[in-house]
Amino acid sequence: MSVREERRAKLRADLIDIAYRKIGQDGLSSVTARYLSSEAGCALGAIYNMFEDMNQLFMQVNMRSFEKLARGVALSLEELSDPSPHEQLNALAQTYLEYALANQPHWLALFDINMNVESNVPKIYQDSLASLLALIATPMADVFPNKSEAEVKLITQTVFSSIHGIVLLGVQKRLSAVPADSLREMIRFLIYELGDAT
Amino acid sequence: MSVREERRAKLRADLIDIAYRKIGQDGLSSVTARYLSSEAGCALGAIYNMFEDMNQLFMQVNMRSFEKLARGVALSLEELSDPSPHEQLNALAQTYLEYALANQPHWLALFDINMNVESNVPKIYQDSLASLLALIATPMADVFPNKSEAEVKLITQTVFSSIHGIVLLGVQKRLSAVPADSLREMIRFLIYELGDAT
Repeated sequence: MSVREERRAKLRADLIDIAYRKIGQDGLSSVTARYLSSEAGCALGAIYNMFEDMNQLFMQVNMRSFEKLARGVALSLEELSDPSPHEQLNALAQTYLEYALANQPHWLALFDINMNVESNVPKIYQDSLASLLALIATPMADVFPNKSEAEVKLITQTVFSSIHGIVLLGVQKRLSAVPADSLREMIRFLIYELGDAT
Repeated sequence: MSVREERRAKLRADLIDIAYRKIGQDGLSSVTARYLSSEAGCALGAIYNMFEDMNQLFMQVNMRSFEKLARGVALSLEELSDPSPHEQLNALAQTYLEYALANQPHWLALFDINMNVESNVPKIYQDSLASLLALIATPMADVFPNKSEAEVKLITQTVFSSIHGIVLLGVQKRLSAVPADSLREMIRFLIYELGDAT
C-alpha cells in the first residue's frame, strides 16, 4: 500500500468511526457531511470522494451494527445447552430486543436509511441481512418439519417482522405498546405459539 | 353559534381537510403552517389560535384516518357469516393491511406524529386506539378461553404489534420484506398459529 493509499484507508475508517459514534449519540439525522469533515479534519469533497453519497457511508456504519448484533446472537445461542428449536428462536428474538433497547439509535439507523428492494444495496449489506435471517430459518425448519424450504423462508420473514413490530412499538413507547419488561414476555409468548411447542 | 364562532368552526374544519388531503398526496412532512395558511387563506397566527401546535392538528387528521380504518374493520366483520374467532382476527388483520396499502401516507402518519406514552395525547385519540384494540381483544378472548383479561390484553398488543411489523416492513419494501401478495399469506399464517385453530 502506498502512503497515499494508506492515508485514504485511514480517513475512510475514521469517517465510519465518527459517523458510528455520532449516530449512537444523536441519531442518523445528526450526521451531516459538514460535521464529518469538521471532525475528521478533511475537505467536504474528500468525503464524497470516498463514499458515493451519505447513504453509502451509513451502510458501512450499519454493517458494524449488524456485526455487533450478530455477535450477540451467536453468544446467546452458545449459552444454551441442548436447546429446543423454540428456545433457540426465543434466544434469537430476545437478543434482538436487548440489542434494540441497548443500542436504540444504531438499531433505528438500520431501518432509517434510504434503502429498499428497488434501490442499489451493496451485496455485503444484503448478505448480512440474509445471514441473520438464515440463523432464524434453521431452528424454524425444526419447528415446522413438514414445511418446504420456501415456506420456512416465508415463516421466518413473518416471525422476524412480527418481533420487529413488537420491539419497534415498544422502543418508540407508542400508545399501543407496553413496558420493556412485558416486551420480553410478549416475544416469548409469540415464539411459543409457533408450531407445536410441547 | 355567533357568526364569529361559525367562521371559526369552518376554518378549523377547512384546515383539517387541507391537511388530510396534503398528507394523502405528499406525506406528513409536507404539511407546514405556511402551506395551510396559504391554502386556507388565513393568517399564520390563526392556525396556532386554533391548534396548540401542528401535532394537535395532525391528531385531528389521524382521528379521521382512524374513523376510516374503523369503518373498514366493521365492514369486514359484517361480511363474515358465523365466523370463528380466527376468521374474525384474520379479517381484522387483513383489513389493517389493506388500509395501509391503499392509504399509505395516512397510515404512516398515524405513527409518524410526535406522540408517545409520555407526551400529552388527547383523550379522544387514546379512546380511538383503545377501541381498535378492544375489537381485537374480543375474538382473542375466545381463542384463549383460559387466559385472564390482563393476559388477553397483552396478547392483543402482541398480535397487533406483530401484524403492524409485517405490514410496515412490507409497505416500506425493506430487504427483509416480501411482495404484497405474500403479506396476506404471512398474516393469515400468524393468526392461525394462535391458540388452537382446529
